Amino acid sequence: MRELLVIGIGAGDPDQVTIQAVKAMNRADVFFVIGKGDEKQELVDLRTTILSEHMDRDYRIVDILDPPRDRTNVPSVRSAGSAQPDYGTVVDDWHDRRAQVFEEKFAAEDGVGAILVWGDPSLYDSTLRIVERVLARGNVVFDYTVIPGVTSIQSLAAQHRIVLNRIGEPVHVTTGRRLREGLPDGVGTAVVMLDAECSFTHVPDKDTEIWWGAYLGLPDEVLISGKLRAVEDEIVRVRAELRKRKGWIMDIYLIRR
Amino acid sequence: MRELLVIGIGAGDPDQVTIQAVKAMNRADVFFVIGKGDEKQELVDLRTTILSEHMDRDYRIVDILDPPRDRTNVPSVRSAGSAQPDYGTVVDDWHDRRAQVFEEKFAAEDGVGAILVWGDPSLYDSTLRIVERVLARGNVVFDYTVIPGVTSIQSLAAQHRIVLNRIGEPVHVTTGRRLREGLPDGVGTAVVMLDAECSFTHVPDKDTEIWWGAYLGLPDEVLISGKLRAVEDEIVRVRAELRKRKGWIMDIYLIRR
Ligand SMILES: C[S@@+](CC[C@H](N)C(=O)[O-])C[C@H]1O[C@@H](n2cnc3c(N)ncnc32)[C@H](O)[C@@H]1O
Ligand SMILES: C[S@@+](CC[C@H](N)C(=O)[O-])C[C@H]1O[C@@H](n2cnc3c(N)ncnc32)[C@H](O)[C@@H]1O
Repeated sequence: MRELLVIGIGAGDPDQVTIQAVKAMNRADVFFVIGKGDEKQELVDLRTTILSEHMDRDYRIVDILDPPRDRTNVPSVRSAGSAQPDYGTVVDDWHDRRAQVFEEKFAAEDGVGAILVWGDPSLYDSTLRIVERVLARGNVVFDYTVIPGVTSIQSLAAQHRIVLNRIGEPVHVTTGRRLREGLPDGVGTAVVMLDAECSFTHVPDKDTEIWWGAYLGLPDEVLISGKLRAVEDEIVRVRAELRKRKGWIMDIYLIRR
Repeated sequence: MRELLVIGIGAGDPDQVTIQAVKAMNRADVFFVIGKGDEKQELVDLRTTILSEHMDRDYRIVDILDPPRDRTNVPSVRSAGSAQPDYGTVVDDWHDRRAQVFEEKFAAEDGVGAILVWGDPSLYDSTLRIVERVLARGNVVFDYTVIPGVTSIQSLAAQHRIVLNRIGEPVHVTTGRRLREGLPDGVGTAVVMLDAECSFTHVPDKDTEIWWGAYLGLPDEVLISGKLRAVEDEIVRVRAELRKRKGWIMDIYLIRR
Protein backbone atom coordinates (compact mmCIF):
# COMPACT_ATOMS: atom_id res chain seq x y z
CA MET A 1 0.00 0.00 0.00
CA ARG A 2 1.53 3.31 -1.03
CA GLU A 3 -1.13 5.70 0.27
CA LEU A 4 -3.82 5.69 2.93
CA LEU A 5 -6.91 7.92 2.99
CA VAL A 6 -8.67 8.40 6.33
CA ILE A 7 -12.12 9.65 5.39
CA GLY A 8 -14.77 11.19 7.66
CA ILE A 9 -18.25 10.14 6.47
CA GLY A 10 -20.55 12.14 8.75
CA ALA A 11 -22.32 10.90 11.83
CA GLY A 12 -25.42 9.08 10.63
CA ASP A 13 -27.17 10.45 7.56
CA PRO A 14 -25.51 8.87 4.50
CA ASP A 15 -26.03 12.19 2.65
CA GLN A 16 -23.75 13.86 5.18
CA VAL A 17 -20.77 12.62 3.20
CA THR A 18 -18.90 15.46 1.44
CA ILE A 19 -18.00 15.73 -2.26
CA GLN A 20 -14.37 15.65 -1.11
CA ALA A 21 -15.01 12.33 0.66
CA VAL A 22 -16.72 10.88 -2.42
CA LYS A 23 -13.77 11.91 -4.61
CA ALA A 24 -11.30 10.43 -2.11
CA MET A 25 -13.28 7.17 -1.90
CA ASN A 26 -13.05 6.87 -5.67
CA ARG A 27 -9.25 6.97 -5.50
CA ALA A 28 -9.18 3.92 -3.23
CA ASP A 29 -8.41 0.37 -4.35
CA VAL A 30 -9.12 -1.18 -0.98
CA PHE A 31 -11.27 -0.27 2.05
CA PHE A 32 -10.20 -1.47 5.45
CA VAL A 33 -13.23 -2.12 7.63
CA ILE A 34 -12.37 -2.12 11.30
CA GLY A 35 -14.59 -4.23 13.51
CA LYS A 36 -14.52 -5.17 17.12
CA GLY A 37 -16.50 -8.27 16.27
CA ASP A 38 -19.61 -6.71 17.85
CA GLU A 39 -20.42 -4.12 15.20
CA LYS A 40 -24.02 -2.95 15.00
CA GLN A 41 -25.40 -4.28 11.72
CA GLU A 42 -27.16 -0.96 11.06
CA LEU A 43 -23.86 0.92 11.12
CA VAL A 44 -22.16 -1.67 8.93
CA ASP A 45 -25.07 -1.35 6.46
CA LEU A 46 -24.71 2.41 6.46
CA ARG A 47 -21.10 2.18 5.33
CA THR A 48 -22.11 -0.32 2.66
CA THR A 49 -24.82 2.08 1.45
CA ILE A 50 -22.36 4.96 1.23
CA LEU A 51 -19.90 2.83 -0.77
CA SER A 52 -22.44 1.34 -3.16
CA GLU A 53 -24.07 4.72 -3.75
CA HIS A 54 -20.91 6.66 -4.49
CA MET A 55 -18.27 4.28 -5.85
CA ASP A 56 -17.79 4.42 -9.63
CA ARG A 57 -15.03 1.81 -9.72
CA ASP A 58 -14.13 -1.65 -8.44
CA TYR A 59 -12.76 -1.96 -4.97
CA ARG A 60 -11.80 -4.57 -2.41
CA ILE A 61 -12.93 -4.77 1.19
CA VAL A 62 -10.50 -6.04 3.82
CA ASP A 63 -11.72 -6.66 7.35
CA ILE A 64 -9.49 -5.78 10.25
CA LEU A 65 -10.60 -7.49 13.43
CA ASP A 66 -9.64 -5.34 16.38
CA PRO A 67 -7.96 -7.10 19.30
CA PRO A 68 -10.27 -6.91 22.35
CA ARG A 69 -9.68 -4.09 24.80
CA ASP A 70 -8.88 -5.20 28.35
CA ARG A 71 -12.00 -3.73 29.93
CA THR A 72 -11.45 -5.27 33.37
CA ASN A 73 -8.59 -2.86 33.96
CA VAL A 74 -10.43 0.30 33.04
CA PRO A 75 -11.27 2.16 36.24
CA SER A 76 -14.29 4.42 36.00
CA VAL A 77 -12.34 7.28 37.54
CA ARG A 78 -8.68 8.05 36.90
CA SER A 79 -7.01 6.48 39.92
CA ALA A 80 -3.78 8.27 40.72
CA GLY A 81 -1.72 6.25 43.20
CA SER A 82 -3.78 3.08 42.89
CA ALA A 83 -2.18 -0.27 42.05
CA GLN A 84 -4.39 -0.64 38.97
CA PRO A 85 -2.90 0.41 35.66
CA ASP A 86 -4.55 3.69 34.78
CA TYR A 87 -6.89 4.27 31.88
CA GLY A 88 -4.16 5.83 29.75
CA THR A 89 -1.83 2.81 30.11
CA VAL A 90 -4.49 0.25 29.33
CA VAL A 91 -5.55 2.11 26.23
CA ASP A 92 -1.90 2.46 25.27
CA ASP A 93 -1.24 -1.32 25.29
CA TRP A 94 -4.37 -1.87 23.30
CA HIS A 95 -3.29 0.60 20.63
CA ASP A 96 0.05 -1.23 20.33
CA ARG A 97 -1.69 -4.53 19.71
CA ARG A 98 -3.97 -2.83 17.21
CA ALA A 99 -1.01 -1.30 15.37
CA GLN A 100 0.49 -4.76 14.78
CA VAL A 101 -2.76 -6.07 13.33
CA PHE A 102 -3.13 -3.01 11.07
CA GLU A 103 0.49 -3.24 9.91
CA GLU A 104 -0.02 -6.80 8.65
CA LYS A 105 -3.15 -5.87 6.74
CA PHE A 106 -1.60 -2.73 5.22
CA ALA A 107 1.55 -4.64 4.18
CA ALA A 108 -0.55 -7.23 2.32
CA GLU A 109 -2.20 -4.65 0.00
CA ASP A 110 -1.20 -2.70 -3.13
CA GLY A 111 -2.21 0.76 -4.28
CA VAL A 112 -4.39 3.20 -2.35
CA GLY A 113 -6.10 2.16 0.88
CA ALA A 114 -8.94 3.91 2.68
CA ILE A 115 -10.59 3.81 6.09
CA LEU A 116 -14.07 5.32 6.52
CA VAL A 117 -14.41 6.98 9.91
CA TRP A 118 -17.70 7.78 11.66
CA GLY A 119 -18.22 11.56 11.92
CA ASP A 120 -14.85 13.28 11.77
CA PRO A 121 -11.52 11.48 12.33
CA SER A 122 -10.29 14.16 14.77
CA LEU A 123 -12.93 13.64 17.44
CA TYR A 124 -12.82 10.74 19.92
CA ASP A 125 -11.63 8.31 17.29
CA SER A 126 -8.46 6.27 17.41
CA THR A 127 -7.83 5.64 13.70
CA LEU A 128 -5.21 8.41 13.33
CA ARG A 129 -3.39 7.29 16.47
CA ILE A 130 -3.11 3.75 15.13
CA VAL A 131 -1.92 4.97 11.73
CA GLU A 132 0.79 7.05 13.47
CA ARG A 133 1.81 4.01 15.51
CA VAL A 134 2.00 1.79 12.45
CA LEU A 135 4.27 4.36 10.77
CA ALA A 136 6.38 4.78 13.94
CA ARG A 137 7.11 1.04 13.95
CA GLY A 138 8.95 1.66 10.68
CA ASN A 139 8.08 -1.65 8.97
CA VAL A 140 5.75 -0.17 6.36
CA VAL A 141 5.91 3.22 4.63
CA PHE A 142 3.01 5.12 3.04
CA ASP A 143 1.62 8.61 2.57
CA TYR A 144 -1.59 9.46 4.27
CA THR A 145 -4.28 12.10 4.00
CA VAL A 146 -7.22 12.96 6.24
CA ILE A 147 -10.59 14.06 4.81
CA PRO A 148 -12.67 15.91 7.42
CA GLY A 149 -16.30 15.02 8.07
CA VAL A 150 -19.40 16.45 9.71
CA THR A 151 -19.31 15.51 13.41
CA SER A 152 -22.17 14.36 15.63
CA ILE A 153 -21.80 17.76 17.39
CA GLN A 154 -22.80 19.55 14.18
CA SER A 155 -25.62 17.04 13.65
CA LEU A 156 -26.97 17.64 17.16
CA ALA A 157 -26.89 21.42 16.72
CA ALA A 158 -28.51 21.26 13.26
CA GLN A 159 -31.36 19.00 14.37
CA HIS A 160 -32.11 21.24 17.36
CA ARG A 161 -31.41 24.34 15.21
CA ILE A 162 -29.15 25.80 17.89
CA VAL A 163 -25.89 27.71 18.00
CA LEU A 164 -23.39 25.91 20.25
CA ASN A 165 -21.75 29.00 21.73
CA ARG A 166 -23.25 31.98 23.50
CA ILE A 167 -22.06 35.13 21.73
CA GLY A 168 -18.27 35.39 22.14
CA GLU A 169 -18.21 32.52 24.65
CA PRO A 170 -16.44 29.14 24.59
CA VAL A 171 -17.83 25.67 24.03
CA HIS A 172 -16.41 22.77 26.00
CA VAL A 173 -16.49 19.32 24.38
CA THR A 174 -16.19 16.51 26.87
CA THR A 175 -17.15 12.95 27.90
CA GLY A 176 -19.75 11.60 30.32
CA ARG A 177 -17.00 10.52 32.72
CA ARG A 178 -15.52 14.04 32.78
CA LEU A 179 -18.91 15.64 33.27
CA ARG A 180 -19.43 13.51 36.39
CA GLU A 181 -16.12 14.83 37.75
CA GLY A 182 -17.54 18.36 37.32
CA LEU A 183 -17.00 20.94 34.58
CA PRO A 184 -14.08 23.38 34.92
CA ASP A 185 -14.96 26.75 36.49
CA GLY A 186 -16.06 29.26 33.91
CA VAL A 187 -17.42 26.66 31.50
CA GLY A 188 -21.05 27.54 30.79
CA THR A 189 -21.69 25.40 27.73
CA ALA A 190 -20.62 21.79 27.20
CA VAL A 191 -21.21 19.15 24.57
CA VAL A 192 -21.10 15.68 26.12
CA MET A 193 -20.22 12.59 24.10
CA LEU A 194 -19.42 8.98 25.00
CA ASP A 195 -21.82 8.95 27.92
CA ALA A 196 -23.22 5.52 28.71
CA GLU A 197 -24.48 6.58 32.13
CA CYS A 198 -26.79 9.59 31.75
CA SER A 199 -24.20 11.76 33.49
CA PHE A 200 -26.42 14.81 33.02
CA THR A 201 -28.37 13.59 36.08
CA HIS A 202 -25.26 14.46 38.13
CA VAL A 203 -25.37 18.13 37.14
CA PRO A 204 -26.36 19.92 40.37
CA ASP A 205 -27.97 23.01 38.81
CA LYS A 206 -31.33 21.86 37.47
CA ASP A 207 -31.90 25.25 35.80
CA THR A 208 -29.35 24.03 33.29
CA GLU A 209 -30.82 23.54 29.82
CA ILE A 210 -30.19 20.39 27.80
CA TRP A 211 -30.52 19.55 24.10
CA TRP A 212 -30.27 15.76 23.73
CA GLY A 213 -30.22 13.62 20.59
CA ALA A 214 -29.95 9.90 19.91
CA TYR A 215 -29.34 8.07 16.60
CA LEU A 216 -28.91 11.44 14.89
CA GLY A 217 -29.41 11.26 11.13
CA LEU A 218 -30.66 7.67 11.37
CA PRO A 219 -34.28 6.56 10.96
CA ASP A 220 -34.72 6.20 14.74
CA GLU A 221 -33.52 9.71 15.58
CA VAL A 222 -34.96 11.12 18.82
CA LEU A 223 -34.60 14.68 20.12
CA ILE A 224 -35.50 15.98 23.57
CA SER A 225 -34.76 19.43 24.98
CA GLY A 226 -35.73 21.65 27.89
CA LYS A 227 -34.73 22.51 31.44
CA LEU A 228 -32.86 19.63 33.06
CA ARG A 229 -35.39 19.65 35.91
CA ALA A 230 -38.25 19.11 33.47
CA VAL A 231 -36.77 16.58 31.05
CA GLU A 232 -34.03 14.56 32.75
CA ASP A 233 -36.33 11.74 33.86
CA GLU A 234 -37.86 11.55 30.41
CA ILE A 235 -34.43 11.30 28.76
CA VAL A 236 -33.33 8.56 31.19
CA ARG A 237 -36.51 6.59 30.48
CA VAL A 238 -36.55 7.08 26.70
CA ARG A 239 -32.85 6.27 26.48
CA ALA A 240 -33.32 3.00 28.41
CA GLU A 241 -36.30 1.99 26.26
CA LEU A 242 -34.55 2.75 22.98
CA ARG A 243 -31.42 0.96 24.05
CA LYS A 244 -33.40 -2.11 25.04
CA ARG A 245 -35.45 -2.13 21.85
CA LYS A 246 -32.50 -1.72 19.44
CA GLY A 247 -29.77 -3.35 21.52
CA TRP A 248 -27.49 -0.28 21.28
CA ILE A 249 -27.65 3.48 21.47
CA MET A 250 -25.57 6.48 20.38
CA ASP A 251 -26.42 9.76 22.03
CA ILE A 252 -24.94 13.20 22.56
CA TYR A 253 -26.10 16.40 24.24
CA LEU A 254 -25.42 20.04 24.84
CA ILE A 255 -25.89 21.47 28.33
CA ARG A 256 -25.88 25.17 29.15
CA ARG A 257 -25.94 26.74 32.61
CA MET B 1 -41.32 32.67 1.66
CA ARG B 2 -42.72 29.51 3.16
CA GLU B 3 -39.48 27.72 4.10
CA LEU B 4 -35.89 28.68 4.87
CA LEU B 5 -32.87 26.40 4.59
CA VAL B 6 -29.74 27.38 6.53
CA ILE B 7 -26.98 25.38 4.87
CA GLY B 8 -23.41 24.82 6.11
CA ILE B 9 -21.03 24.73 3.14
CA GLY B 10 -17.71 23.82 4.78
CA ALA B 11 -14.91 26.18 5.68
CA GLY B 12 -12.95 26.77 2.49
CA ASP B 13 -12.62 23.87 0.07
CA PRO B 14 -15.67 23.96 -2.24
CA ASP B 15 -15.62 20.14 -2.24
CA GLN B 16 -16.29 20.21 1.51
CA VAL B 17 -19.97 20.68 0.75
CA THR B 18 -22.05 17.60 1.66
CA ILE B 19 -24.48 15.69 -0.57
CA GLN B 20 -27.18 16.78 1.90
CA ALA B 21 -26.25 20.43 1.33
CA VAL B 22 -26.31 19.97 -2.46
CA LYS B 23 -29.77 18.39 -2.26
CA ALA B 24 -31.00 21.19 0.01
CA MET B 25 -29.57 23.86 -2.31
CA ASN B 26 -31.51 22.33 -5.17
CA ARG B 27 -34.78 22.80 -3.27
CA ALA B 28 -34.19 26.56 -3.03
CA ASP B 29 -35.81 29.18 -5.25
CA VAL B 30 -33.86 32.06 -3.79
CA PHE B 31 -30.50 32.47 -2.06
CA PHE B 32 -30.04 35.30 0.39
CA VAL B 33 -26.46 36.52 0.32
CA ILE B 34 -25.55 38.41 3.46
CA GLY B 35 -22.85 41.00 3.08
CA LYS B 36 -21.37 43.57 5.36
CA GLY B 37 -20.41 45.60 2.31
CA ASP B 38 -16.75 44.64 2.84
CA GLU B 39 -16.92 41.01 1.72
CA LYS B 40 -13.68 39.48 0.48
CA GLN B 41 -14.13 38.84 -3.23
CA GLU B 42 -12.46 35.43 -2.88
CA LEU B 43 -15.12 34.25 -0.43
CA VAL B 44 -17.94 35.64 -2.56
CA ASP B 45 -16.46 33.79 -5.56
CA LEU B 46 -16.30 30.59 -3.56
CA ARG B 47 -20.03 30.71 -2.88
CA THR B 48 -20.66 31.44 -6.56
CA THR B 49 -18.51 28.42 -7.51
CA ILE B 50 -20.43 26.15 -5.16
CA LEU B 51 -23.75 27.33 -6.57
CA SER B 52 -22.80 27.14 -10.24
CA GLU B 53 -21.18 23.73 -9.76
CA HIS B 54 -24.08 22.10 -7.93
CA MET B 55 -27.31 23.83 -8.93
CA ASP B 56 -29.42 21.91 -11.47
CA ARG B 57 -32.23 24.47 -11.58
CA ASP B 58 -32.88 28.21 -11.88
CA TYR B 59 -32.56 30.36 -8.81
CA ARG B 60 -32.57 33.98 -7.75
CA ILE B 61 -29.96 35.74 -5.64
CA VAL B 62 -31.07 38.42 -3.19
CA ASP B 63 -28.47 40.51 -1.41
CA ILE B 64 -29.02 41.44 2.21
CA LEU B 65 -26.80 44.31 3.24
CA ASP B 66 -26.05 44.00 6.93
CA PRO B 67 -26.41 47.14 9.03
CA PRO B 68 -22.97 48.13 10.34
CA ARG B 69 -22.01 46.93 13.82
CA ASP B 70 -21.20 49.69 16.30
CA ARG B 71 -17.57 48.75 16.75
CA THR B 72 -16.62 51.81 18.82
CA ASN B 73 -18.56 50.40 21.74
CA VAL B 74 -17.00 46.96 21.76
CA PRO B 75 -14.57 46.79 24.67
CA SER B 76 -11.72 44.33 24.23
CA VAL B 77 -12.36 42.83 27.67
CA ARG B 78 -15.82 42.26 29.19
CA SER B 79 -16.09 45.29 31.46
CA ALA B 80 -18.39 44.52 34.38
CA GLY B 81 -19.32 47.69 36.20
CA SER B 82 -18.01 50.03 33.53
CA ALA B 83 -20.14 52.79 32.04
CA GLN B 84 -19.70 51.39 28.54
CA PRO B 85 -22.45 49.13 27.22
CA ASP B 86 -21.01 45.63 27.39
CA TYR B 87 -20.20 43.42 24.44
CA GLY B 88 -23.41 41.42 24.83
CA THR B 89 -25.65 44.53 24.71
CA VAL B 90 -23.98 46.04 21.69
CA VAL B 91 -24.23 42.78 19.78
CA ASP B 92 -27.86 42.49 20.87
CA ASP B 93 -28.89 45.87 19.37
CA TRP B 94 -27.10 45.01 16.21
CA HIS B 95 -28.98 41.70 15.90
CA ASP B 96 -32.27 43.58 16.28
CA ARG B 97 -31.44 45.92 13.45
CA ARG B 98 -30.35 42.95 11.36
CA ALA B 99 -33.62 41.11 12.06
CA GLN B 100 -35.62 44.01 10.62
CA VAL B 101 -33.59 44.03 7.43
CA PHE B 102 -33.92 40.25 7.05
CA GLU B 103 -37.64 40.33 7.71
CA GLU B 104 -38.22 42.75 4.83
CA LYS B 105 -36.21 40.62 2.41
CA PHE B 106 -37.88 37.37 3.50
CA ALA B 107 -41.35 38.92 3.22
CA ALA B 108 -40.67 39.98 -0.36
CA GLU B 109 -39.95 36.43 -1.59
CA ASP B 110 -42.00 33.37 -2.53
CA GLY B 111 -41.21 29.68 -2.17
CA VAL B 112 -38.10 28.20 -0.54
CA GLY B 113 -35.26 30.45 0.58
CA ALA B 114 -31.72 29.45 1.50
CA ILE B 115 -28.74 30.98 3.24
CA LEU B 116 -25.30 29.44 2.74
CA VAL B 117 -23.24 29.60 5.92
CA TRP B 118 -19.45 29.35 6.13
CA GLY B 119 -18.39 26.15 7.91
CA ASP B 120 -21.22 25.02 10.15
CA PRO B 121 -24.13 27.27 11.23
CA SER B 122 -23.76 26.28 14.90
CA LEU B 123 -20.28 27.69 15.45
CA TYR B 124 -19.62 31.42 15.95
CA ASP B 125 -22.17 32.37 13.34
CA SER B 126 -25.18 34.63 13.88
CA THR B 127 -27.50 33.43 11.08
CA LEU B 128 -29.62 31.20 13.33
CA ARG B 129 -29.93 33.92 15.98
CA ILE B 130 -31.24 36.35 13.37
CA VAL B 131 -33.69 33.81 11.98
CA GLU B 132 -35.03 33.20 15.50
CA ARG B 133 -35.38 36.95 16.01
CA VAL B 134 -37.21 37.41 12.74
CA LEU B 135 -39.64 34.65 13.77
CA ALA B 136 -40.01 36.10 17.27
CA ARG B 137 -41.11 39.44 15.80
CA GLY B 138 -44.13 37.54 14.48
CA ASN B 139 -44.58 39.47 11.21
CA VAL B 140 -43.52 36.63 8.92
CA VAL B 141 -44.00 32.88 9.35
CA PHE B 142 -41.96 30.09 7.75
CA ASP B 143 -40.51 26.66 8.49
CA TYR B 144 -36.78 26.36 8.70
CA THR B 145 -34.22 23.60 8.55
CA VAL B 146 -30.49 23.56 9.32
CA ILE B 147 -28.04 21.50 7.27
CA PRO B 148 -24.78 20.89 9.17
CA GLY B 149 -21.39 21.52 7.58
CA VAL B 150 -17.73 20.70 8.10
CA THR B 151 -16.25 23.32 10.46
CA SER B 152 -12.86 25.04 10.26
CA ILE B 153 -11.96 23.01 13.38
CA GLN B 154 -12.33 19.78 11.40
CA SER B 155 -10.38 21.32 8.53
CA LEU B 156 -7.54 22.34 10.81
CA ALA B 157 -7.32 18.87 12.35
CA ALA B 158 -7.48 17.13 8.96
CA GLN B 159 -4.76 19.26 7.40
CA HIS B 160 -2.45 18.67 10.38
CA ARG B 161 -3.64 15.03 10.59
CA ILE B 162 -4.22 15.36 14.33
CA VAL B 163 -6.83 14.17 16.81
CA LEU B 164 -8.23 17.14 18.75
CA ASN B 165 -8.63 15.39 22.10
CA ARG B 166 -6.11 13.50 24.21
CA ILE B 167 -7.58 10.04 24.96
CA GLY B 168 -10.72 10.48 27.09
CA GLU B 169 -9.98 14.20 27.60
CA PRO B 170 -11.99 17.30 26.72
CA VAL B 171 -11.46 19.86 23.97
CA HIS B 172 -12.18 23.51 24.70
CA VAL B 173 -13.28 25.70 21.77
CA THR B 174 -12.75 29.38 22.41
CA THR B 175 -11.89 32.82 21.02
CA GLY B 176 -8.67 34.86 21.00
CA ARG B 177 -10.14 37.29 23.52
CA ARG B 178 -10.98 34.46 25.93
CA LEU B 179 -7.56 32.89 25.54
CA ARG B 180 -5.94 36.18 26.61
CA GLU B 181 -8.08 36.10 29.78
CA GLY B 182 -6.58 32.65 30.52
CA LEU B 183 -7.98 29.16 29.96
CA PRO B 184 -10.11 27.59 32.73
CA ASP B 185 -8.20 25.31 35.13
CA GLY B 186 -8.09 21.76 33.91
CA VAL B 187 -8.31 22.67 30.23
CA GLY B 188 -5.31 21.11 28.49
CA THR B 189 -6.41 21.42 24.87
CA ALA B 190 -8.05 24.41 23.21
CA VAL B 191 -9.04 25.35 19.70
CA VAL B 192 -8.87 29.11 19.22
CA MET B 193 -10.97 30.92 16.60
CA LEU B 194 -11.72 34.58 15.89
CA ASP B 195 -8.27 35.72 16.97
CA ALA B 196 -7.11 38.90 15.26
CA GLU B 197 -4.31 39.48 17.76
CA CYS B 198 -2.06 36.40 17.89
CA SER B 199 -3.29 35.69 21.42
CA PHE B 200 -1.16 32.54 21.56
CA THR B 201 1.79 34.83 22.35
CA HIS B 202 0.09 35.48 25.73
CA VAL B 203 0.20 31.79 26.72
CA PRO B 204 2.76 31.69 29.54
CA ASP B 205 3.88 28.06 29.16
CA LYS B 206 6.08 27.99 26.06
CA ASP B 207 6.25 24.17 26.20
CA THR B 208 2.70 24.32 24.89
CA GLU B 209 2.36 22.89 21.39
CA ILE B 210 0.50 24.72 18.65
CA TRP B 211 -1.00 23.64 15.33
CA TRP B 212 -1.86 26.73 13.33
CA GLY B 213 -3.60 27.08 9.97
CA ALA B 214 -4.63 30.00 7.76
CA TYR B 215 -6.91 30.06 4.67
CA LEU B 216 -7.65 26.35 5.24
CA GLY B 217 -8.92 24.63 2.13
CA LEU B 218 -8.16 27.69 -0.01
CA PRO B 219 -5.29 27.99 -2.52
CA ASP B 220 -3.24 30.08 -0.05
CA GLU B 221 -3.48 27.62 2.83
CA VAL B 222 -0.54 27.79 5.27
CA LEU B 223 0.17 25.38 8.14
CA ILE B 224 2.70 25.82 10.95
CA SER B 225 3.12 23.61 14.00
CA GLY B 226 5.56 22.95 16.83
CA LYS B 227 6.41 24.07 20.34
CA LEU B 228 5.14 27.60 20.99
CA ARG B 229 8.65 28.62 22.00
CA ALA B 230 10.00 27.55 18.62
CA VAL B 231 7.29 28.75 16.25
CA GLU B 232 5.39 31.68 17.78
CA ASP B 233 7.58 34.36 16.20
CA GLU B 234 7.32 32.66 12.84
CA ILE B 235 3.53 32.52 13.04
CA VAL B 236 3.32 36.21 14.01
CA ARG B 237 5.57 37.15 11.09
CA VAL B 238 3.93 34.88 8.48
CA ARG B 239 0.45 35.98 9.59
CA ALA B 240 1.33 39.68 9.24
CA GLU B 241 2.87 39.11 5.80
CA LEU B 242 -0.09 37.09 4.50
CA ARG B 243 -2.58 39.57 5.85
CA LYS B 244 -0.76 42.44 4.20
CA ARG B 245 -0.41 40.66 0.89
CA LYS B 246 -4.05 39.51 0.62
CA GLY B 247 -5.74 42.26 2.62
CA TRP B 248 -7.46 39.77 4.95
CA ILE B 249 -6.76 36.59 6.84
CA MET B 250 -8.71 33.75 8.44
CA ASP B 251 -6.78 31.59 10.87
CA ILE B 252 -7.41 29.05 13.61
CA TYR B 253 -5.22 26.96 15.89
CA LEU B 254 -5.10 24.17 18.42
CA ILE B 255 -2.93 24.58 21.51
CA ARG B 256 -2.10 21.78 23.92
CA ARG B 257 -0.27 22.08 27.24
C1 LIG C 1 -16.29 7.24 19.50
S1 LIG C 1 -17.16 8.76 19.42
C2 LIG C 1 -16.95 9.16 17.74
C3 LIG C 1 -17.36 10.56 17.39
C4 LIG C 1 -17.26 10.85 15.90
N1 LIG C 1 -15.87 10.76 15.43
C5 LIG C 1 -17.86 12.20 15.54
O1 LIG C 1 -17.18 12.98 14.85
O2 LIG C 1 -18.99 12.45 15.92
C6 LIG C 1 -18.82 8.19 19.54
C7 LIG C 1 -19.75 9.18 20.24
O3 LIG C 1 -20.17 10.14 19.30
C8 LIG C 1 -21.51 10.49 19.52
N2 LIG C 1 -22.27 10.15 18.29
C9 LIG C 1 -21.74 9.76 17.11
N3 LIG C 1 -22.69 9.60 16.19
C10 LIG C 1 -23.86 9.88 16.78
C11 LIG C 1 -25.21 9.90 16.33
N4 LIG C 1 -25.52 9.58 15.07
N5 LIG C 1 -26.18 10.24 17.22
C12 LIG C 1 -25.86 10.57 18.48
N6 LIG C 1 -24.61 10.56 18.95
C13 LIG C 1 -23.62 10.23 18.12
C14 LIG C 1 -21.99 9.74 20.74
O4 LIG C 1 -21.80 10.58 21.86
C15 LIG C 1 -21.02 8.58 20.79
O5 LIG C 1 -20.83 8.13 22.11
C1 LIG D 1 -17.20 33.80 12.38
S1 LIG D 1 -16.29 32.33 12.67
C2 LIG D 1 -17.19 31.18 11.70
C3 LIG D 1 -16.80 29.75 11.90
C4 LIG D 1 -17.54 28.79 10.97
N1 LIG D 1 -18.98 28.80 11.22
C5 LIG D 1 -17.00 27.37 11.09
O1 LIG D 1 -17.80 26.44 11.25
O2 LIG D 1 -15.77 27.18 10.98
C6 LIG D 1 -14.83 32.69 11.71
C7 LIG D 1 -13.58 32.04 12.31
O3 LIG D 1 -13.51 30.70 11.87
C8 LIG D 1 -12.17 30.34 11.59
N2 LIG D 1 -12.11 29.93 10.17
C9 LIG D 1 -13.17 29.76 9.35
N3 LIG D 1 -12.78 29.35 8.15
C10 LIG D 1 -11.43 29.24 8.19
C11 LIG D 1 -10.44 28.84 7.24
N4 LIG D 1 -10.78 28.45 6.01
N5 LIG D 1 -9.15 28.85 7.63
C12 LIG D 1 -8.81 29.21 8.88
N6 LIG D 1 -9.69 29.60 9.79
C13 LIG D 1 -11.00 29.61 9.47
C14 LIG D 1 -11.31 31.53 11.93
O4 LIG D 1 -10.85 31.36 13.25
C15 LIG D 1 -12.27 32.67 11.83
O5 LIG D 1 -11.90 33.73 12.68
